[in-house]
This record gives sequence, C-alpha cells and structure tokens, in this order.
Amino acid sequence: MLNSVKIDLDIIEVDIRDSLGMICAEEVRAPFDIPLFDRSAVDGFAVRSFDVSSASQHNPVYLTIVGSLEAGSDLSGVRPLNDGEAYAVYTGAPMPPGADAVVPFEYCINEGSRVGVLRPVPPYGNVSRAGEDFRKGDVIVRRGVKLMPWHIAALASANVSRVKVYRRVRVAIMNTGNELINLGGGLRPGKIINSTGLLIESYVKLLNAEPIPLGIIPDDVESIRGAVVKSLSMSDIVVITGGTSIGDTDLVPEALESISGAIRLFHGVAIRPGRTAGAYIIGGKPVLIISGLPVACLVSLEVFLKPLIHFLTGEDELPLATVKAILTRRLVNEVGFKSFYRVSVCYGDDGKIYAEPLRLTGSGILSTLIRGNGIIVIPEEVEGFDVGEEISVQILNPISKCNSVYHIP
Amino acid sequence: MLNSVKIDLDIIEVDIRDSLGMICAEEVRAPFDIPLFDRSAVDGFAVRSFDVSSASQHNPVYLTIVGSLEAGSDLSGVRPLNDGEAYAVYTGAPMPPGADAVVPFEYCINEGSRVGVLRPVPPYGNVSRAGEDFRKGDVIVRRGVKLMPWHIAALASANVSRVKVYRRVRVAIMNTGNELINLGGGLRPGKIINSTGLLIESYVKLLNAEPIPLGIIPDDVESIRGAVVKSLSMSDIVVITGGTSIGDTDLVPEALESISGAIRLFHGVAIRPGRTAGAYIIGGKPVLIISGLPVACLVSLEVFLKPLIHFLTGEDELPLATVKAILTRRLVNEVGFKSFYRVSVCYGDDGKIYAEPLRLTGSGILSTLIRGNGIIVIPEEVEGFDVGEEISVQILNPISKCNSVYHIP
Repeated sequence: MLNSVKIDLDIIEVDIRDSLGMICAEEVRAPFDIPLFDRSAVDGFAVRSFDVSSASQHNPVYLTIVGSLEAGSDLSGVRPLNDGEAYAVYTGAPMPPGADAVVPFEYCINEGSRVGVLRPVPPYGNVSRAGEDFRKGDVIVRRGVKLMPWHIAALASANVSRVKVYRRVRVAIMNTGNELINLGGGLRPGKIINSTGLLIESYVKLLNAEPIPLGIIPDDVESIRGAVVKSLSMSDIVVITGGTSIGDTDLVPEALESISGAIRLFHGVAIRPGRTAGAYIIGGKPVLIISGLPVACLVSLEVFLKPLIHFLTGEDELPLATVKAILTRRLVNEVGFKSFYRVSVCYGDDGKIYAEPLRLTGSGILSTLIRGNGIIVIPEEVEGFDVGEEISVQILNPISKCNSVYHIP
Repeated sequence: MLNSVKIDLDIIEVDIRDSLGMICAEEVRAPFDIPLFDRSAVDGFAVRSFDVSSASQHNPVYLTIVGSLEAGSDLSGVRPLNDGEAYAVYTGAPMPPGADAVVPFEYCINEGSRVGVLRPVPPYGNVSRAGEDFRKGDVIVRRGVKLMPWHIAALASANVSRVKVYRRVRVAIMNTGNELINLGGGLRPGKIINSTGLLIESYVKLLNAEPIPLGIIPDDVESIRGAVVKSLSMSDIVVITGGTSIGDTDLVPEALESISGAIRLFHGVAIRPGRTAGAYIIGGKPVLIISGLPVACLVSLEVFLKPLIHFLTGEDELPLATVKAILTRRLVNEVGFKSFYRVSVCYGDDGKIYAEPLRLTGSGILSTLIRGNGIIVIPEEVEGFDVGEEISVQILNPISKCNSVYHIP
C-alpha cells in the first residue's frame, strides 16, 4: 500500500527548545570534542605523572603548589606546569596545561606552599578526557530520530541551538452523515453531535501530527468530492468518516472514485470492529475512509492512521505498554478476522491482575472507550480465549482496584 | 514527604479541543440520554410489534407504508404510527413515534404502498435505545482523569464544549556551577554548555507540565538564595541542579537552609546514579536539588519529579513499556543502593532480544542517554544480574537490529 504514497515532508529549522517530539531531519555530528577539555575527575593535585613515578608512603615526592583551579575556572591566565610543580584541582576543573594526571587529596600531604605526594599515578589517572562524551565528528543525533529530552540535551552540549526537523504531518479530517451536528449545536431527536470528528482531531494531536478539522460535509457525492479535492491541497493524509449506514447512503467511495487518478487500495478489511474501512491514493496522498462509530473509528486510527504517519516521518514504533491479565469472561473471535476488544483491567484483592471484557451492543458505544483501559487483540487464526486464560493486554489508561471479586476456576 | 506539600492547583476552564493531556478537575455527568432517541439498528420497517405478532412466512401481516426515515431525518413532520402502518427506516434513523421495533428488509415483501411482514419481532427488537451509551446523570468523566481522545469525544457527545481542568504544574528550573555557560555562548576550555537545563526543561514538557527556565545562577549563597525565593513565588516546584562538585563549592543546601521555614526532607539517597539528590519544603512547596550531571539528573527526574507532579495533579501512573531481554554482560549492584542502568536493547539475528549495558566512566555521559534505549532497575537487596539472565527492561526509544552477534552461554 505504502509504495504508491508520494509525499515529501518539508524540512524546517526550529530552536531545539521547540523540537521535543519532532522527527530529526538531519544527521548532527559533534563539531568539537565534548567536553572540550580534560577535566579532573576527583579533588586532588594535578601533576606531571612522570614527576611522581617514584613516590611512596616512605619517600614522598615534594612538588611546589603553583595555584588552584575549580570547575569553571578559566585557563587563560594559567601557565604550563614546570618540573616539580602541582595545581590543586577540584572535580570538574580543567586540567592545567602540562599536567597529565591527578593525585587525590587523600594520597597527598598538603604543606601549604608544597605538597608531598605519597603514590604514583599513571598518565591520565583520575582525568576525564576531552571527547569522552562525543569525539569531534561523532554522530549525536541521527536522521529519523524522534527528539526526546536527552537528544535535546546532547544537541545543547554541542552548542547546537537549532535543528532541522520534518514539519508535522497534516491530517485533514471530515465527517459525513446527515445525522451529525456540530458541537454546541441544538440537539434534537434524530441528530447526534459529531463527536467522532473530535476523537480523530485529538488522536492526531496525540501522534504529534497536525489536525486540519474540516467538519461536517453534506452527504452528497458533489459535496464530498469537492471537500476531498480541496483538502488534498492542504494536507498529507485525508481521513473521512462515513455515516452510520453502510447501505444506500454511503456515498464516500462513489465520490472518491469520481476523482481522476484515484486508486482504490482496499475497501472492507478483516478487522473487527472497523471492517468497513477503506483506503484510496489520490494524487499520491492516502485517503482513509473509516467508520463514524467511535469504537470502530479508534481501531482504524490505530491500525491504519498511526502506522501511516510513522511511515511518513520514518519513525520507529515504541513497544506498547502491556500487562498479563486473567480473563474474566470468554472472548470469542470469528476466525478470519483480527479482533480488538476493549477490556477493563484492574488489580484484584488477591494481588492478581484481571481483564474484564466490556459488554457492548455495537461499535458505536463511546462509554466502552471510557470504561475500558486496555485492548486485547485476537489474531485471525485464533477462535478466542477462555475464562481464566492469562493473556497480554495493551494498557491505555492507568490500572486501579477491581470493583468486583473474581472467582476464576 | 508529600504530606507537608501545600499546593492548590488553580482550576481553569478550557475548550475541550484544548484539553488533551490535561487533568479533569470536575465530574461531568450526561445532561441527557446519549443518544437522545431510539434509533433503528438495521435497514428495515419500523412497526408496532403488537401489529405483527402473528406474522409468518405463510400468513404475512400487511401494513401500509406511510413514509421513510434515514439517519439524520427530522422527526418534526412525522406523525405517530397508527394501527397497521409502517415506516421504512435505515440504520441510525430515529424511530418514528408509535413504532417500537424494526423488521429487517429481508423478512419483508415490499409492495410499494404496503409491506408484507413475514416474521414477528419483539418490542424493541432491532432498536438501539436512547441512553444506550450514557443515561442522563451517568458520569462521563471523573475528576482526576487525564483527558485522552476518547474522553474528549465523550464530552462532545454530551454537547459539552468546555471543561474544567487543573492548570499545568509550574516547575522553576535553575542551574548552578561556574563551569556552565548558556547555549550559544562562546565555549572555551573549562566551560561546558548548560545542557542539563534543557534536559530538565524538555522533560517537564514531556510530563505535560510547564517549565519556567531561570537559567544559570552564580555559585554563591546570596545569589542562589535570592533566585530560589523569587522562583517560589511563580512556580509550584523548584528544581535546582548543583555543579559537578559535591565538595567545597556545593552551596545549594546552605542557601536553602538560610531561607526561613525551610524544612529538609532528605539530602543523599540510596539511588545510583543520583545519590546526591536532596529535597526541601519551603513555604509548602517542594524544592528538589539534583545533580547537574545528565545521567544522574535524569534518574532523579524519573524518581522524584515525575511522581511529585503526578501527586499534585492526582494522576495515576501508566505502567511503563517493558520487554524481557537477555543480558549480555554481568551487572553488579552495590547492595543497599537501588541502581538504574542504561542499556541498549536490540533484536538479534536469532530472534531474541538482548540488553547490552553501556560502559560509562561517570554519570555525566550524555552519549549513554542517546545510545541507550532502555533502563534496568536493580533493587537495593539484589547483588546484580548475570550474563544470560532474562530480565525486564523499561523501553524509552524503539528497538532495532543488534550491531553485534551475541553468543551467550
């Protein structure tokens, strides 16, 4: 399906403070060693290791103390160490030129103007080296990486204050169905609020993409066709929901096929709920048709829209948070369909985790989305799961105590 | 620790479109049945079930067709069904007054002006009832819930367009250390960019809280004290990082204790890295002292700041995404410390998942945060894990193919 998608996301340059969650569009390499300089890893005396190679408890080597450096000290006024000289240094302090190792204070006798060193130290002993974090030219952030706080900190450490990222994927959203009215409109029998439009809009935001909500489109071929053509010019992906009917009044496929060059990828899938989903490519851009019923809609967003957005940004997917839970009722699957069941996952008094499938009469029941905090996926070839089976559940909202006590055989 | 925290987060009212990820500050109940009306669940004829109770294949009951209703049809012009009448209805259409059941088209003979019904139907057969999703008065969203797309859709279905939420938690961030310079500043030996400030700032954003970055504070007691006092007036939590030294120049605790009413909760914890972390309460607000070294800093943010923010918002925590992985090198723990190890998690050619601990010389190595995509937590009482052990790893960034081939005994 995705081979025929032709979208180049524009690259924009942003302040790294505004880059959280964006996808990096360039490879950034360290422009210099990070850190830039050798630092002391301990509190002690910076020395030339050669000078103290014979030092011992019984025969201390005495060096002249010529100064003191702390973390942040400036090296500009510091002259190189000569034979027999030492600098007091504190953790994080830059190493003075000429010194190549640090003897910790506990192995020194500090006599004010001079120090007796009681142990030898190898070259670079107790020194954190320049370039220890990144050497000049090392890759700091790869192209395609989703920028997280640690990436932003690493860019900052390289003194990189702007980064090239892909602009967010734009998703146009429109909803058909003569039963729909806008939020805030006068509700009366026969009408329902276009809540699915808001479901999709906020789901798109959750994916770090940019929703372009176009609202309710009149349920006739010309209006749908016109709205799709217009939305293609301002978006990368178009999502259009059909009305609740899959009968005579479902005009969306007809409208899409009337647009020149439209390629139908599929219409109808072996996924429940959401089997009426479809996808077209028009002008190289994907157009998804999904159910206007909220539960079916959400499954389609997870199964089709999310991977599509990740495909466009080149982003890898994180594994989902899952727990193992004991099923409290049998779940039956129609073989040949991949099924998505909403369940309520909770901690029992016995310390076990239970998954209670939610009863629902249709895929339009928003309340199951609210009461459910987990999803069980049943693969095509599986007939179902039995009561008491321990199965893997994807967790979408936090787990709390069970309201019921379960006695599972 | 948290008993002495006294912060009331202001409650603000926002458009539900702007409420994604915010914490709901009110209980919202359905102001009416949702949906508002009985709908047909199929395409068929809406009838009075009593009229067709004797219908059969051999003795159809004939009804007069008095009209047709689709999803979205208006009931205002529709008169109640009389004896012996039927309406053609499509899925989602409102039930005409007087009708209490729907006979699907396949059990009807449509003769144009009248219809022969071949089967009886019980009252409310094939009808989705008003209030099926939420009954008037049902709780739609509880106080304390983090608003996700399905909550927003449910609010919309109730025609609720604004919702009360807690304003974001404000976290003031300041960084001490004379070695620090601002991003974009002239870097020279002895100095490092304040990358930890950006690490904290973007981590706070990731938690849906509001960072107030106050930048670098001069490393003297008076400056630190003044900055903390000022920041307390504009934030709910103050995070202050110490310099790289934990020796003579660590002036932060001294500065905090000079503020009247400051209560020290702890300073120094059995957690590695990050053992120098501390916490105070000043004027009822938490002040966290954490390491300026990035790896230690991030552990402290996860262990202290994240639960603190969730405590203030009343939000439950989601389980973390974890995988089981085979350890490629022994990990040793100092008993008595809870240790956090960054690891690189990858898929081997043998299909197994491996966790490779990252070598690091200190807790300041940003590159381990970039290269690592997982965290292994070793509890206080555990001495470590062996090569080849299968252990649970928290996943922060996606898993890709291993670069090495592992031969684990």
